[in-house]
Amino acid sequence: MKKIEHIGIAVNDLEASNNLFEKLLGRPHYKIEEVASEGVRTSFFKNGPNKIELLEATNPDSPIAKFLEKKGQGIHHVAFAVDDIVGEIKRLKGEGFTILNETPKKGADNKLVAFLHPKTTNGVLVELCQEAPLPKGEGA
Amino acid sequence: MKKIEHIGIAVNDLEASNNLFEKLLGRPHYKIEEVASEGVRTSFFKNGPNKIELLEATNPDSPIAKFLEKKGQGIHHVAFAVDDIVGEIKRLKGEGFTILNETPKKGADNKLVAFLHPKTTNGVLVELCQEAPLPKGEGA
Repeated sequence: MKKIEHIGIAVNDLEASNNLFEKLLGRPHYKIEEVASEGVRTSFFKNGPNKIELLEATNPDSPIAKFLEKKGQGIHHVAFAVDDIVGEIKRLKGEGFTILNETPKKGADNKLVAFLHPKTTNGVLVELCQEAPLPKGEGA
Repeated sequence: MKKIEHIGIAVNDLEASNNLFEKLLGRPHYKIEEVASEGVRTSFFKNGPNKIELLEATNPDSPIAKFLEKKGQGIHHVAFAVDDIVGEIKRLKGEGFTILNETPKKGADNKLVAFLHPKTTNGVLVELCQEAPLPKGEGA
């Protein structure tokens, strides 16, 4: 756990929230990315060593759609940067945390990600994220 | 807005949660501090350039007691580090945000703090925090 990589915020309307967070943070978002497998459209803002990720649902079965329905807009998760996601999953499982996906999956922003069940983390949805290795042929 | 200074997490039992977050983050909390004016007892963990603050209510009128009653344990707020809290309050007010305390107040961890109303920030309770100047005679 090296730092807070980002916090994820569930929003109803990505365009409106991009304008709002541009005013709040004093700079515009730097990218929009859809993660079809998760049913979300995301935008990212830099904030020093951290990022803010806004999440809009793209279909009614999206976890973000369900979160918005149940709790309304607000902070959805906190993501911590890790160097070795497989090792961290093993360590945290050994400590008694429930890992929602024990095999890391591809998330937004070129990351490998895994989530911890909020029931084992004081109600906080925790994401681990590791910079994904470049596909073969693209890296050194 | 220089970085995420910390995220604040509302917890039922500070001791139990200190143990839990020590396992999660891989290091112990480095201090416990009571802020009597806010009705909270807090503990802090370092996480690279960021901190995690756990918040336990010390009386039933505490904003944390009300949050726990309504929403249960979870992320309560995100705090951004600023150099000039008075200037930022003025800027954000001009952008249409509602500031809960327009005069910065003393928070935990030797900070001057101000909060933005979640209704104007997509349901996110946003704290601004500036390192408090040292009392006269203690600084340069």
